[in-house]
Amino acid sequence: MIVPRLIERKRDGKALEPAEIRELVLEYAAGNVPDYQMAAFLMAVFFRSLDKSEMTALMEAMIDSGDRLDLSHLQLPRIDKHSTGGVGDKTSLILAPVMASLGVAVPMMSGRGLGHTGGTLDKLESIPGFRTSLTLDEARRQVEKIGCAMLGQTLEIVPADRKLYALRDATATVEVIPLIAASIMSKKISESLTGLVLDIKSGSGSFLPELKDEIALAQAMIGLGADYGCPVVALVTAMDRPLGFACGNTLEVVEAIDVLNGGGPADLIEVTVELGAEMLLLGSKAGSRGEGRTMMQEAVSSGRAIAKFEEIVQAQGGDARVVRDPSRLGLAPIRREYYAPRDGVVQTVEPRAVGHGVIELGGGRTSMEDEVDPAVGFVITCKPGDRVKRGAPLAVVHARTEADAEAGKRRLGEAIVIGDAALRALPLVSHRITAAGVEPVNALS
Amino acid sequence: MIVPRLIERKRDGKALEPAEIRELVLEYAAGNVPDYQMAAFLMAVFFRSLDKSEMTALMEAMIDSGDRLDLSHLQLPRIDKHSTGGVGDKTSLILAPVMASLGVAVPMMSGRGLGHTGGTLDKLESIPGFRTSLTLDEARRQVEKIGCAMLGQTLEIVPADRKLYALRDATATVEVIPLIAASIMSKKISESLTGLVLDIKSGSGSFLPELKDEIALAQAMIGLGADYGCPVVALVTAMDRPLGFACGNTLEVVEAIDVLNGGGPADLIEVTVELGAEMLLLGSKAGSRGEGRTMMQEAVSSGRAIAKFEEIVQAQGGDARVVRDPSRLGLAPIRREYYAPRDGVVQTVEPRAVGHGVIELGGGRTSMEDEVDPAVGFVITCKPGDRVKRGAPLAVVHARTEADAEAGKRRLGEAIVIGDAALRALPLVSHRITAAGVEPVNALS
Repeated sequence: MIVPRLIERKRDGKALEPAEIRELVLEYAAGNVPDYQMAAFLMAVFFRSLDKSEMTALMEAMIDSGDRLDLSHLQLPRIDKHSTGGVGDKTSLILAPVMASLGVAVPMMSGRGLGHTGGTLDKLESIPGFRTSLTLDEARRQVEKIGCAMLGQTLEIVPADRKLYALRDATATVEVIPLIAASIMSKKISESLTGLVLDIKSGSGSFLPELKDEIALAQAMIGLGADYGCPVVALVTAMDRPLGFACGNTLEVVEAIDVLNGGGPADLIEVTVELGAEMLLLGSKAGSRGEGRTMMQEAVSSGRAIAKFEEIVQAQGGDARVVRDPSRLGLAPIRREYYAPRDGVVQTVEPRAVGHGVIELGGGRTSMEDEVDPAVGFVITCKPGDRVKRGAPLAVVHARTEADAEAGKRRLGEAIVIGDAALRALPLVSHRITAAGVEPVNALS
Repeated sequence: MIVPRLIERKRDGKALEPAEIRELVLEYAAGNVPDYQMAAFLMAVFFRSLDKSEMTALMEAMIDSGDRLDLSHLQLPRIDKHSTGGVGDKTSLILAPVMASLGVAVPMMSGRGLGHTGGTLDKLESIPGFRTSLTLDEARRQVEKIGCAMLGQTLEIVPADRKLYALRDATATVEVIPLIAASIMSKKISESLTGLVLDIKSGSGSFLPELKDEIALAQAMIGLGADYGCPVVALVTAMDRPLGFACGNTLEVVEAIDVLNGGGPADLIEVTVELGAEMLLLGSKAGSRGEGRTMMQEAVSSGRAIAKFEEIVQAQGGDARVVRDPSRLGLAPIRREYYAPRDGVVQTVEPRAVGHGVIELGGGRTSMEDEVDPAVGFVITCKPGDRVKRGAPLAVVHARTEADAEAGKRRLGEAIVIGDAALRALPLVSHRITAAGVEPVNALS
């Protein structure tokens, strides 16, 4: 393998052999191909893309660069949910226990928040003692025992992907659909999933600005999963406003517990239930989406879902008492209301502004080295389309200092735009994407 | 400067500020920007190019990364010649002494051969003792004293360019016109030139496969030189066959000495004289191209040119006796004739095949670490269009072993194609390119 000739061929729009991609990736993971050659290759891929067989070879090489979370001996469906990243999105915290309580094993490997979006690991770690750095052995034993483990990407799994991701982050080659698809699917296949539900966020707060790119990403992942016995179903959901009310790690855990207890914001419940119904369908636990929804409601109303969450928290070393008494979770000392500055209709609650506001309060990251303060954030109780009176309470800021609270309120002033007439908001769930194609959501039943 | 954001903007086709390019290059040279970020940037430049102000900023930063060969105190025109690289091209060896003997100072910084093309430094070093690794001080003193110095790129001059070039070589980002133009011109401006003649090779043996790219390169260099008081004139010359007869370092020195003594192949003389006439025009030593040609002939016939070459060889530590007695230059022990395999017309003498043949004999490089054997090579006395009889001697192979000589003859069999009718060969000099535009060569007078 002469690496510059390989980069050159990709640069010139020629396809590489799967064996060439494999060697490049494995030699890179082994430290035998330098970062600078891989960086040039990745930038060439930005411009020239990867075809299906190249993308598959990339994914396979990343899987084979490490160990797997082998769960193939389990007689249970193994379904995970993956989101392209949003603000206020705590659906994973709800879905994992609900699914496990319904007989679907959930080996859930999640990430940390970066930029304006939050991450499941940060949310879980706001529970005192909760340990997300499980080894693959620990994760396997926990899934065997209680049907679910919620962990971070371990050092043992897809090391090539971890190394590549760090390089992509430093070289402006993150937003490349085949690289994203192979990266996500390498982790999911390494978890021995039998199915994956993908939550594709659309709208101003989403990761990829164009819905067509999000759909292309979903279709690439569907293609990769199909070859590995891991069918993928994607729902396109709204991220033109935060999901639910709470934005900030502890606040989001509290809201997730609220939903597991039968409460919580309607939009969060609806998106969670639609994603969960797809998981139950993929796991052959429900015969129809309607049956799936009913099963989820029963899991909540029977108390089995919240009990499962308690089990997970306990199994991973967390203080399980917070599940029954969320007030045990500490919040920041300053709590300030934000009031409507005028009469009118809420036109937007801009997720990026909210997400950046959380970072400014100390609750998010601009680089992976940043520490996160779980106790800060916003609870924004208004939604686009709401008619409000001047002075009505729209949100609460949780902050460490008065100055932070004031800055938080200024951010809310930017994020929450009130006008004379409602703007068109995206439907909560707009499209469903499968191997068969893209269907609009009104076809869901 | 947030480097990934800068890469991203270039990637997305946006222009960068000159100050941003400058900071990127100087921080890269200082080791504060890692190779992998620069590699991604370079690949983005491959796809998005650089505009004039970006290219100028790149060139300036490379110049300012090191020292200059300051000759601005000399009351002489300072003209160099640069070629895009060819096979059998020994014009620099002839032009440097001829020009210096005519009152044009030639601070000539050259490169080594790589791939199928040869390099002036390797040719000079086939003269026993000849030292090309002059310091800038030595070079300046020599130009002051004898009007010419022939040296390699020193560590002091454009270090950013040297570091970038090594990275480009390893990342398939060599063939990028604004990068090539800025790289060459940074060196030329650092030599304090008052003019540059560019020899753009066209045809199958040329570096860039498309003539339009070669013209674009010339125009980019003309634009860069114009801003720095260094007018650039380019001639497009034929590289669909080797230039002259000799290909191989010692053989080429012998042929260059032959020309300096008034002999040598007609095509080599013609191209050298046309390039030299442009140098004399740029240096205001000749009022017309015709006058320039006459001056060169007189420099040769009077013996001043060969005497100047002797001076240069002596000044740089070489055995000057070889100039009067080239038989002192050692050639490889095996010498084998190559005969025409059939009656017919020589259709092609393919320069790439000849160049690769020289490498196989040990006389060239595939990587910069390779040692070069100066004593091997080919003397190919036939030219496209020559009518030949079966068994006529067409070339001589100079080799270390019988096996090498046989391999060399096989290469000649590939390179020299004999058919029934002549193919169209490129004119030796086809176009002249200046700031005013591209003119066909038949307009030259």
